[in-house]
Parts: sequence; structure tokens; C-alpha cells
Amino acid sequence: MSTNGKVYLIGAGPGDAELLTLRALRMLKEADAVVYDRLVSPEILDLAPATAQMIPVGKAPNCHTVPQDRINEILAELAAQGLTVARLKGGDPLIFGRGSEEAAYLTERGLAVDYAPGITAAQGTAAATGVPLTHRGLATGVRYVTGHRAADQRLDLDWKSLACPDTTLVVYMGAANIAEIALRLMGEGMPAALPVMAISAATTPREQRLVSRLDQIGVDISAMPMRAPVLFVIGHVVSLYRDDTARPLPRVLTEPTVMAGE
Amino acid sequence: MSTNGKVYLIGAGPGDAELLTLRALRMLKEADAVVYDRLVSPEILDLAPATAQMIPVGKAPNCHTVPQDRINEILAELAAQGLTVARLKGGDPLIFGRGSEEAAYLTERGLAVDYAPGITAAQGTAAATGVPLTHRGLATGVRYVTGHRAADQRLDLDWKSLACPDTTLVVYMGAANIAEIALRLMGEGMPAALPVMAISAATTPREQRLVSRLDQIGVDISAMPMRAPVLFVIGHVVSLYRDDTARPLPRVLTEPTVMAGE
Ligand SMILES: C[S@@+](CC[C@H](N)C(=O)[O-])C[C@H]1O[C@@H](n2cnc3c(N)ncnc32)[C@H](O)[C@@H]1O
Ligand SMILES: C[S@@+](CC[C@H](N)C(=O)[O-])C[C@H]1O[C@@H](n2cnc3c(N)ncnc32)[C@H](O)[C@@H]1O
Repeated sequence: MSTNGKVYLIGAGPGDAELLTLRALRMLKEADAVVYDRLVSPEILDLAPATAQMIPVGKAPNCHTVPQDRINEILAELAAQGLTVARLKGGDPLIFGRGSEEAAYLTERGLAVDYAPGITAAQGTAAATGVPLTHRGLATGVRYVTGHRAADQRLDLDWKSLACPDTTLVVYMGAANIAEIALRLMGEGMPAALPVMAISAATTPREQRLVSRLDQIGVDISAMPMRAPVLFVIGHVVSLYRDDTARPLPRVLTEPTVMAGE
Repeated sequence: MSTNGKVYLIGAGPGDAELLTLRALRMLKEADAVVYDRLVSPEILDLAPATAQMIPVGKAPNCHTVPQDRINEILAELAAQGLTVARLKGGDPLIFGRGSEEAAYLTERGLAVDYAPGITAAQGTAAATGVPLTHRGLATGVRYVTGHRAADQRLDLDWKSLACPDTTLVVYMGAANIAEIALRLMGEGMPAALPVMAISAATTPREQRLVSRLDQIGVDISAMPMRAPVLFVIGHVVSLYRDDTARPLPRVLTEPTVMAGE
């Protein structure tokens, strides 16, 4: 067996296999072993070579998962055996993906690493719904934050800086804390009527959408809980949402509820 | 000729043809006409069907270009003739890409629109350099802004909100104004030693990189002007940059076998 093993850190995109990049597909096809997260869809795993070793490593919320240290070791062990390892992550490996932590661990050990970027959840959502991330007159920029907090910790976000209504705010990992996030943003002066879109499993056949506003999203989400993964898009761009501009996808919710006044 | 023309708003990614998504390639292959921006690389245009009408529309800085209104009309005229139109844009069509303006114009006229998201310049840069957009302990989020200003206008950015050193700040279209941007950020308390990376033509064979800091980027860029397009990444994540973690520069694309059943 050759000793020049390597690890490809691959962004698998938001779910739809057609959103893989050509590079991601090429790297996946070269793999002797595939180490994958729970967010990677079955259609994408099906593209791996039939001979590849398939190694799931996790990350369902509240479930037993492989800790990050162990994932690092698994990747290093496989590459040290001379294997070509495809490390598949949801979205982009360098946006809330810990790809750079894995890369640092591997390169410190002299192991080769290469990246394939991926369509991040925010972009998949934009393309699926027609809601842009920037738009003249509605959003001069876009910002991605995480709404996740460690157990027993406060949400560690710079609320003053976030309260910028001409920037589209995209919240990853925010389903558990969206009511608090919305309250804090309003506390810093963000308008109560600012539109918010919640989307679950964007770009997959399980996609669900909910259009609401900052002062109602907490209530709306507890009335209709969505299955993980859920993304929130907060900002005036959501006012452009029209159900018929969306590309055809099987979906449950189709009725934008509260758009008056925006 | 059929009357069901349509326009595909396609993100062509940052330059390297291998960063196209499978969907972008599929849509491009279906095109009767290709309407493309200057940022779209020749390797990608080569993937269009040999029979497709090729229509360049623009946007070199300081050059005569097709105005946006005229681009909208061209797209509508082609689609109204029943053609399948591939509208190719650099990066992602819904991030500083005006894709949603074109979509609005077309859907108002009853013309069908569909999107292919693309790898945005920030993601291409991250994957090419190994500098992540988020990283535990260095950046809790990422923000994309434009550093462009209209003629005779002041830079219209919310400096207080931008001065958030634990958010990676990515400046698109900022080459002309980076010195002023850096000064204003320092004026709001951003550390003078905060690392900054400038990158030109990321992911292409013409890629150039410059690593500097907030109090020196203005001088460095005027000493070594970079050719458009240039992107700036400002934040602690840039401290992870190691020249040897960079992946080898792109090679010639081997055309992928597109997935069966998709
Ligand atoms: C650990 S982060 C990984 C993000 C990923 N690296 C990316 O670039 O999209 C997981 C979060 O991403 C978001 N997410 C990922 N895929 C999604 C999808 N298809 N639909 C909605 N949200 C998604 C959700 O907010 C989820 O909690
Ligand atoms: C009009 S914006 C289009 C952005 C595009 N829609 C995207 O998502 O990347 C043009 C700006 O994108 C950035 N850009 C696009 N491609 C780039 C590349 N390959 N390298 C560096 N910057 C790039 C530059 O800042 C440039 O001024």
C-alpha cells in the first residue's frame, strides 16, 4: 500500500446532490474511505465508490456522537495507512464546519489535506426560495452567525452589532434559541415587523418553509416545530419571497402568512 | 420554436471550472444562448454547447458595459423567443450578483426562472488558502460587505456594527477603498494588528495573495496593486494562513461524468 494517503475535506452542500461541485464529486470518486456527517444526504453517499469503506461520525442533536478529537484521529489513521479519505461535511467545510480544525490536526502530522468548497445552507436556501442574500435597497451585505449555545451558557452574540437592519442575518443552528434571538434583536432596535424565514432541510424533498416576522417567529416555531436542520433568514430580503418564484420542490408549507406592511 | 423559454440564473463560482456545481453544468449544457459577465472564466465558457449563441454583457470596471436595464431586456427577449438562456454570473447569483433583480424583471413578464447557486468568492478563497471563514476561538461568524461606492458618494457602511473583531469580515469590490475602510474600522476600535489577506483572481492560475494587517493594508496595496477581481478577508482567521497549506493551483478540467438519474 502506498504511503501517500491524504484527506479531502469536502463540502457536500445543503442536501440536493446536484449542488455538489465537480471537484467534490471527483474527490468523492477517488476515495478509499468516506467519513461523513449526519447532514450528508443518502443520495450523495450513493455516489461513493462501491468499494469505499463508509464511516459515519455523527452529530445528531442530543445523540451519542463521535467526539471531534476522535474524528481527527480516525482521519489521521486512515490517511497514515495510505488511503485517500473523503471527509464529507454538510454545506461548506469552512463555514461552521470545523474543517480547519481537522486540517490543522492532519497537517501537524505531515498528512496532506485538500479542500472542496460547498454550497452553504444560506445559498441553498436562497436558490431554492428565490430570496436573495443581498439586494439593492434591501440588503447591502449578509452575515452568518450561529444561534447555538454550549450547555448552561448564555448566547454569546454581539447584539448591538447584529442589529443592523440593512444586513441580511442568517442564523445557523438557531432552532432552540430563535425566540430569544428575536427578542434581543428587537431590544437593540430591530423592527418588530422585520420578516423572517425559517427553512428546514432546504433543497431536499423534505424541505419546509415558514415566513413570519421578528415579533412572531418564536411563537410560530413553537406552534409548528420543524425538523432539523433549520436555518433562519432575517431581513428585508425575505419580503421578496413569492411562492411561485421558488423552483418546484415537494414541500409541505406553501402559504406565506404575515407579509403585510413590508 | 417552442414558447416555453426560460432563464437559468447560474452561479459560475470564483473562476476554477471545477468549482461549478453539477446543476450549473447541467443548465449550461441545456442552453441555446449564454449571457455572461466578465468574471466568468474562459474555461467555463468552453463548457457551453458549441451551437449556443454567446453574449457578453459586461462589467469591466471603468469600461463601457451593458447597463442592467438592457441586460434584463436581452434576457427577456431571448426567453420570449422560446430559448433556454443560461445567465452566467461570477460566484453566487444571489450574493452581490443582482440575480434577484433579473429574476423579478423576468417573472413579472411571466417568464420562467430557475437558479443554480455558486461558490462565492469568499468560499473559493477559503478553500484555496486554507483560511476558514469561521473557526472556534477565532471567528464566531462571517460577514460579507461591499466596499464599492457610487461616484461622488461616501462609503455607506455601518462602521460601528462592522467593528466586531470576532466576526470574519469579507470585503467584495473593495480594492479602490480599502485604505479608507481599514482606517474607519480602526477608528471604531478594531485592532491595528488585525490580520488582513488580499487575494486576486482566487482559484485561477492568475491567483495572487498578500497577507498584511489593518494598519498596513492600504500602503501594501498601493505598493503592489493587484489586478481585479480582488477580495479582502479581515480577521483573526487570517492568522491561520500557512503558505504550504495552499492547494496546488488549478489544472485543466477533466469533464465529469454527470450523475445518472439526476
Ligand atoms: C454545524 S452547521 C453546518 C453548516 C454547514 N457547514 C454549511 O455550510 O451549511 C449545521 C447547521 O447548518 C444549517 N443547515 C445545514 N444544512 C441545512 C439545510 N439543508 N436546510 C436548513 N439548514 C441547514 C442548520 O442551521 C444547521 O443547524
Ligand atoms: C460584483 S461582485 C460579484 C460577487 C459574486 N456574485 C460572488 O458571489 O463571488 C465582484 C467582486 O467579487 C469578488 N470576486 C469575485 N471573484 C473573485 C475571485 N476569483 N477572486 C477574488 N475576488 C473575487 C471581488 O471582490 C469582486 O470585486
